[in-house]
Amino acid sequence: MNKVITISREYGAGGHTIGKRVAQELGIEIYDRDIVRETAKASGFELELVEQEGEETSRTSYFLKSLVTGSVHYHDPQDAIHDVQRAIILKFAQQGPCVILGRCADEILRDSGIETLNVFIHADDLHRAVRISEKTGVTNATELQRMIAKKDASRQNYYTHYTGKKWGDSHNYDLTLDSGALGDDLCVKLIVEAACSIE
Amino acid sequence: MNKVITISREYGAGGHTIGKRVAQELGIEIYDRDIVRETAKASGFELELVEQEGEETSRTSYFLKSLVTGSVHYHDPQDAIHDVQRAIILKFAQQGPCVILGRCADEILRDSGIETLNVFIHADDLHRAVRISEKTGVTNATELQRMIAKKDASRQNYYTHYTGKKWGDSHNYDLTLDSGALGDDLCVKLIVEAACSIE
Repeated sequence: MNKVITISREYGAGGHTIGKRVAQELGIEIYDRDIVRETAKASGFELELVEQEGEETSRTSYFLKSLVTGSVHYHDPQDAIHDVQRAIILKFAQQGPCVILGRCADEILRDSGIETLNVFIHADDLHRAVRISEKTGVTNATELQRMIAKKDASRQNYYTHYTGKKWGDSHNYDLTLDSGALGDDLCVKLIVEAACSIE
Repeated sequence: MNKVITISREYGAGGHTIGKRVAQELGIEIYDRDIVRETAKASGFELELVEQEGEETSRTSYFLKSLVTGSVHYHDPQDAIHDVQRAIILKFAQQGPCVILGRCADEILRDSGIETLNVFIHADDLHRAVRISEKTGVTNATELQRMIAKKDASRQNYYTHYTGKKWGDSHNYDLTLDSGALGDDLCVKLIVEAACSIE
């Protein structure tokens, strides 16, 4: 297996858990928080800011930034973070087979010459709510629904802003999986199978 | 394996070939042209009309129909064909495990209580053009591109009209596969694996 596996995932769809198991089965690295740490180190931005701006964009945040800076595209910390993060993702990918979570890695590596398997993991709101509840301790259904909607919107905005494509459109991925319908075990199995089989 | 496998597919992405191999491996029926024949028989419409209207809707055809009938939704032969076809698809699905190609079968069976695995197969234009060329004998690149664009638009319109959803959006399917990137063998393997593994 000589692929870089990129996993884009909806919040609460189990992408991290599934990605970690795929990496374990294949004996390769998985990059998620490491990307945040390395980007913060290389850019000089605070870890919290990189975490906040490195994968999500709220419309409000864009609007406020445009009021402050006069332009959302010029001197926007998010653009600077995206550029550094892009370089970090390329560096990790060039080191050899690995799993990279989110952060437009599919698009960043698209014309890099590096062999990739691009995966998107989604699930219905019920499965996501249960998983988020387990992780965060939040048990209020309305609050869980609000968290899902907010994360969906901000990750969608980020992806579309930096790739010009629609997040979750099957055409952007080699493989998309509904982890709610298929279950984690099968998702891991199918990703490993695909990664090991394609030339 | 007790599932009905629905396969939605882009023109030239190999959905029929892959579906046929999946059905063979699982020893189950595949319904494609049979749906057309049964729908024609049950509705009294000509086979050619059912074939033409049973899966595709061109914007032009809608516009012309609306001029003629005053409404695209009332007394439209396509609506009548869709209703009969829906009943035929439900009948086939109720008979037991099978593969059903296209025709919004994913959406038709969604709340039917029948266990399904919903798959969408797509591919890039280059892979599709090669496959369509092999099948039709057309070798002119512009013509192949035009055929792809036309079929995409008319199948998209049909799906959106009858389901209210976006064709090819990963959220509508348990599994989507890029047959160009993964290859037919792997697509067959992953679908069979998924169909046999989910409870």
